[in-house]
Parts: sequence; C-alpha cells; structure tokens
Amino acid sequence: MASDVHVHLLPKLFEPASLQGGIAVVIDVLRASTTIIHALAAGADRVVPCGEVDTARQLADKFPAGRVLLGGERHGSRIAGFDLDNSPLKYTPETLSGKTLVFTTTNGTRALERCLSAERILIGAFVNRQAIINALQADGRPVHLVCAGTDGYISAEDVLFAGAIAYGVREHQPTPALPDDETQLALALWESARSVDGQVRQTLRDSRGGLNLLELGFDADIDRSATCDMFDLVPELNLATREITAEAVSNGT
Amino acid sequence: MASDVHVHLLPKLFEPASLQGGIAVVIDVLRASTTIIHALAAGADRVVPCGEVDTARQLADKFPAGRVLLGGERHGSRIAGFDLDNSPLKYTPETLSGKTLVFTTTNGTRALERCLSAERILIGAFVNRQAIINALQADGRPVHLVCAGTDGYISAEDVLFAGAIAYGVREHQPTPALPDDETQLALALWESARSVDGQVRQTLRDSRGGLNLLELGFDADIDRSATCDMFDLVPELNLATREITAEAVSNGT
Repeated sequence: MASDVHVHLLPKLFEPASLQGGIAVVIDVLRASTTIIHALAAGADRVVPCGEVDTARQLADKFPAGRVLLGGERHGSRIAGFDLDNSPLKYTPETLSGKTLVFTTTNGTRALERCLSAERILIGAFVNRQAIINALQADGRPVHLVCAGTDGYISAEDVLFAGAIAYGVREHQPTPALPDDETQLALALWESARSVDGQVRQTLRDSRGGLNLLELGFDADIDRSATCDMFDLVPELNLATREITAEAVSNGT
Repeated sequence: MASDVHVHLLPKLFEPASLQGGIAVVIDVLRASTTIIHALAAGADRVVPCGEVDTARQLADKFPAGRVLLGGERHGSRIAGFDLDNSPLKYTPETLSGKTLVFTTTNGTRALERCLSAERILIGAFVNRQAIINALQADGRPVHLVCAGTDGYISAEDVLFAGAIAYGVREHQPTPALPDDETQLALALWESARSVDGQVRQTLRDSRGGLNLLELGFDADIDRSATCDMFDLVPELNLATREITAEAVSNGT
C-alpha cells in the first residue's frame, strides 16, 4: 500500500530533507538507470556508483584482477581506460557475470547523491517498470520519483517514466491523493503517450537526452531503453555500503 | 509568423542570455499577471513593477497625491500602508483610471527581472490569452514563455497557460519545430485540460498557488484568473523606462 507519490522533475527542485522517511526511485532512463539494471540482470554481483572518474579508478584498483569492471561515460562517450561505456547493450552475462561494476555517470550519480536522506533508494527505468511499481506498492512509505535530467535541464524521457510509475501506483489506490504540481505534469505527459503505439520510443528519441544519443549513433540504446518490463528486478542502494544490488529486494508479486 | 516557442517552467531553469533576440511572456497567472492586465484594462496609465516594498513606497512618494496607487502582496496578503492587495477584482476603473500603479509581488517580479535580456517583454494570463497569441504571431522573434512559479517551485497554473500559448502559436505554423522537453510537458498539460469543461478552473484550484489562495479565501480570484479572453490587451514592459503599458501594443488582429 504505497501512499503519497511525488515526482521531482530535477534533483535541484527538491530539498533533500523532504525525502526523509520516504522511498526514492532514481530515474535516468538514457542511460544510467537502464544500464545499471542491465548489469545486475546480467549477473553482476554489485554496482558501485561513483561521482568522479579518478575515484572510480582508485576503487577498482582495490579489487583483485578479473573481478572488477570500470563502466560509465562523460558526455555520452567511454572514459579513457574504462572497460565499458554507458551502453546497456554491452552489459551482457558474458562480460558482467560475477563481477563488481564500478560505474560513473554525471546526471545519474548526481541524482543518486541527492536522494541519500531517503530510507530506501531504488533504480528504475522502463526495462524494470512493473517491478518498480510492484516494489513501491509493497512498501508503505511515501514515494519520491527523482528525475536525473540532462546537465541541469529537465529531460522528457525521465519525466515520462516518472509519470508511468506515478500512474501505475495511483491506479491501485482506492482514493489517490490530489497530485502535486510536478506530479500532475508527469501524469499528463504519460497519459498523452501511454495509449499511442510507439510513443514511449518516440518521446525518448525526441528528448534532449535522446537527440544527444542519436547524434552519437546510439539509436539501438534508445530502442532498448524504451522497452518495457524486460527484467523483473529492482536494484537497490545499500545505504551503509553504498553498493547497488538486486538480490535482497522483494518485488511484492 | 512567430518562430520557435520555448516554455521555461521556472525562472531559474534558463540562462538569461538565451532570451537575447527573443520575445518573452511573463506568466504569473495567480495572480500578478492577471492583476496587471486588470489594472491596465481598468485605465491605469502605467504599472511600475518593483521588487522591494521599500522601493515601491519611495517610488510612489515621488508622484503628486492622488495620481499614484500602491499595490501588491507578500505571502498573498496586502502590504501595510498599501492601497490595494493582489486581487484582480479590486482593480476597477473607479479605482485605477488615470493612475500610476506601483506594484510589487515576489514571484512575478522575480520572473520579470530574469527576462530583461529579451528584446520585448509581454505580460500574459488567461484573461488576455488570445491577445497574447495574436501578438506573438504578429512578431517574428523566438518566443519564450516564462513561468513564474511559486516560491521557487513549479506551479501547474503557469505551466497550463504556457501550454495554451505554445499550442495556440504552433497551431498556425505549417510545420512547427519539434518542441523541446519543457515545452512538451506544457503542451501535454494543456492538451489534457483544453477539451474538458471547467478543467482550466479546476487546475488552478488544485495547483500549489491555487491551494494557497483558497486557504486565504480568494476563491473568486481563482475563478476570475481562469476566465479566458476577457481583455483584448497586451501589457508590455518598456525596457528603457521599466514601466508596463498597454497603449503602444498592436495585437495583430
């Protein structure tokens, strides 16, 4: 029985203290959230999110050779010396199984750090949409859907997903509360897209983040990121260890 | 032939320099924009917008007695010693005709000041919606629709109006450009409301700003602010004198 649902269109549009007692979902559809979900679905033991490239390298150096991979991006491209960029399609079982992934992206990491006063932090994207809805319904806490955005600007793909989750959670509430203003916007965007065939993919392609990716040739990543419910898996940040795993989460089904 | 249309969901979500060469519409539906339009429609000679209460008092002192009125609000209520609060219904010809109005509100003034790098600055609200659309269509510059928000937060009533204007301008373009992400959100909100009877009023009542006003007993102000096309009048800020007048504006009809 999830209660209140609040969409935050950007990390800077809420006070961290307002998340106290709540459950947060970090949303960076293109592509950090989608890629983290792929990594864990592919059998990675854990994902260690990291704000700085140098810190990521130092963290990775502490692991025995062959047990750790460095992944992430700056400006959409692979970082020098890293094993993987931020393309979810490259996060396969052959590469990830049994490994620790040290992962750094700009927008997704910033959003995650802004959520640290929440009691639980999940990672959501279209590829695990229904699993996220189920997890939120099984949890009783107020829900905060935190859109990462792109370089400080609101990005439609994150808001569309937040709207999908808000809609899914509210759909099962007997008397959902009046949505706040940002949540109304996200719900309106989702309702404009949800019954139009191919509209999720089109919104991703037309968004600020999507246009950047198309320019870099990552068309296939957009299509993959627009695919709903590929994985019944909910990544969660362990607030003590600061590692993201998927094993301890019950999805309420 | 208005060209590009960009919605900005809050003043802090754009760089002032991005408005260079453009025409901006300052939007504070509840209630600064609506009240300024009422003042000029009631025959005020000019509105002098002012950020600080003390500055407003000093400005008013320079006018001969009987030629100037002090109006505005802090936290929704009348300021001590001021002639008028921020309730559009009080801005009648009996009170305003032939007067200069020195006017201070928090959100609306902040939005106006953020727009000063635009080439033209108009004041819009539902009460002059069609006049604004006509003025933008008659102008060739890129359009920036700047939502004032409430205390730094996005407010749905401003976004709804921005969506209405973006929709109205794009409707007459043979091949409107792909809307950017914030504009998509505003268009989706407007499209969810435009064909539902009473939905503009309901969105205003349910918004962050509307809920505040209902608590203060200003129900009638919300109804008035939700009334479309009462006035065929476009207030414009004179960038040299920093006064808002309506006389010099052609609305293109």
